[in-house]
Amino acid sequence: MSLQFNLLNQTAAGGRRAQLVLPHQAVETPVFMPVGTAGTVKAVPQDVLESLDAQIILGNTYHLYLRPGHEAIRRMGGLHRFISWPRALLTDSGGFQVFSLSQLRKVSEEGVRFRSHLDGSSHFFTPEHSMDVQIALGADIAMAFDECTEYPADRTRAEESLRLTMAWARRSLDHFTAHKHEVPWFEEKGRCMQCFGIVQGGMYRDLRRESAERLVEMDQAGSGFDGYAIGGLSVGEPRDLTMEMIAEVLPLLPKDKPRYVMGVGYPDEIEQYARMGVDMMDCVLPTRAARHGLLFTSEGRLNIKGKKYAEDQGPPDPACDCMVCRRYSRAYLRHLMQAGEALSGTLNSIHNLAYYLGIMKRVRASLARREAGVSTPA
Amino acid sequence: MSLQFNLLNQTAAGGRRAQLVLPHQAVETPVFMPVGTAGTVKAVPQDVLESLDAQIILGNTYHLYLRPGHEAIRRMGGLHRFISWPRALLTDSGGFQVFSLSQLRKVSEEGVRFRSHLDGSSHFFTPEHSMDVQIALGADIAMAFDECTEYPADRTRAEESLRLTMAWARRSLDHFTAHKHEVPWFEEKGRCMQCFGIVQGGMYRDLRRESAERLVEMDQAGSGFDGYAIGGLSVGEPRDLTMEMIAEVLPLLPKDKPRYVMGVGYPDEIEQYARMGVDMMDCVLPTRAARHGLLFTSEGRLNIKGKKYAEDQGPPDPACDCMVCRRYSRAYLRHLMQAGEALSGTLNSIHNLAYYLGIMKRVRASLARREAGVSTPA
Repeated sequence: MSLQFNLLNQTAAGGRRAQLVLPHQAVETPVFMPVGTAGTVKAVPQDVLESLDAQIILGNTYHLYLRPGHEAIRRMGGLHRFISWPRALLTDSGGFQVFSLSQLRKVSEEGVRFRSHLDGSSHFFTPEHSMDVQIALGADIAMAFDECTEYPADRTRAEESLRLTMAWARRSLDHFTAHKHEVPWFEEKGRCMQCFGIVQGGMYRDLRRESAERLVEMDQAGSGFDGYAIGGLSVGEPRDLTMEMIAEVLPLLPKDKPRYVMGVGYPDEIEQYARMGVDMMDCVLPTRAARHGLLFTSEGRLNIKGKKYAEDQGPPDPACDCMVCRRYSRAYLRHLMQAGEALSGTLNSIHNLAYYLGIMKRVRASLARREAGVSTPA
Repeated sequence: MSLQFNLLNQTAAGGRRAQLVLPHQAVETPVFMPVGTAGTVKAVPQDVLESLDAQIILGNTYHLYLRPGHEAIRRMGGLHRFISWPRALLTDSGGFQVFSLSQLRKVSEEGVRFRSHLDGSSHFFTPEHSMDVQIALGADIAMAFDECTEYPADRTRAEESLRLTMAWARRSLDHFTAHKHEVPWFEEKGRCMQCFGIVQGGMYRDLRRESAERLVEMDQAGSGFDGYAIGGLSVGEPRDLTMEMIAEVLPLLPKDKPRYVMGVGYPDEIEQYARMGVDMMDCVLPTRAARHGLLFTSEGRLNIKGKKYAEDQGPPDPACDCMVCRRYSRAYLRHLMQAGEALSGTLNSIHNLAYYLGIMKRVRASLARREAGVSTPA
């Protein structure tokens, strides 16, 4: 298992380039992972994601559990086969959506009772159940079931939330270890699904440290988490604080395992974090912003709804060579948005994803060039 | 100009294969034309339309006139450039939408006053104005401004409607002939836009004949219409009647010009009409039905919303090799529809268009094979 994360270069600043070998795909990191909530990166066909060089995408356990249901997906051979995506997949634990989308949730030591945002039906999620659902979905990477501490949270609240997340991490890991071979494609691939632990602790540096150390300690005789995520960030706090928490945690995480910051961020953020040594990031921002007409470009943010673009025949981003910028004008994209056309969401999303994936590609190239330069190879 | 419609084969039943040389594309007929109402075939990117071998698509003059406006499109070099579509385009006259979508319309000999369905603003369309708008849009083919006679319509009403359509056809042709060189790409292509006349007459065979004959008579010394459409069909009448009207009109139209039946139809209809000698057809059905979950397949119509497809891992149409049928399952398409995902409309539309375009391709191949067989070459 030691070869599944191959560190290729590392800089003095901590940035590193690596290859993460997952059952369905060898992923080049640092990597940005588009979010495919309900089994689709909204409005973007799978072949387009492939042509954009997306190596790994996310599925949301909460959504897929509710519809079409994890047992149905298991019977159909797992999420890869169901959505026809041969590359890598990661599922979250469902925890974040239970807390952000569902109704009437009630948290206990055992787990969370909640009502579906779709039909009001009652459900109960425990760490064990989250693992079972994720194993049925059969992504390449599962996430431990955690409580995403809200912001702001006072110290007592953050401590209690962390205590719960640490207890749930232990239970998640134990249940995952006992059942990971039940993943639908295990026979076919002959490789195991991975499971990542999640660092919480609110905006308290010492709690973040404690969280990281306790998760790492769970690795006994190589049976610990396969990677570590930093969760509970980008939940409303100032960006300085986000950075501070990431900087606090990164040195405590094992160098030979991937590090994933969940739910970030803006283009400059993902580049910054990648250069600090974050290997994986995901965010709905490029696709969600796209559907609202916000394009990320080399010249900054561009709100395509603007009247000034009505007859602008230039490409959305003159420095971008994505299939949208090569073919369509700002005027056309504005028109599609004004007319409420479905193609608007598709083309805007494709460009924004190309932009995000392009940033990571450039960061990887830059990290690779430093191999013979200022970098300190691992 | 005589070489712009090259008849290649013709069968005893009247079916014919030809090449229609338009300024932007040499179109193989019989051809089905996907409808791109507001400058986009709903939910389908232009490169996908190209890969589906769509040779010519429609734009709706009424929609594009209201938004983004024909003058804006003219300033941007015409509709081809605006929507980044290098192949052939046809615009309707705006008449049908004025009658079906707008509010408070008032018809006079001069034209139609109506209120926009978008913002209630007042507009006046005349045959001359429709031609001006279409020349500004600069499709390859413009349509004469007509009144689409409703169904049912009594004889007096059908006669009056036809009288108006014939007067407007004359005015459309005269104005088009005087201004067709003003099309945005005239200098670049060195070729002229074409204009088709439209046969009306309700469901009265003699009125249909009169309409066809009067349009053909407008061709004096080669200055007539470049092709002829049969309009006012598929407006609620039984299909036998549609067929009867088409059969009545086709023999009266010149053999050396294209014949276009507007707004049809179901898959079996377009095949039937093509085999009778109709060269061009358009319809929103494949894309509109797709957005409602109705797929056309070699096994008949398939409502993808059906619960029985929840775990059906077969392709939408086992006999289809389109990019959707090659990659995705019925279960996945059903899930996308149930979840209200944008990708649903895109994938369903791609399949349905592939199915429609595939029918025409097979009909053309079958007409070509008859060259050395039972067919009667023109």
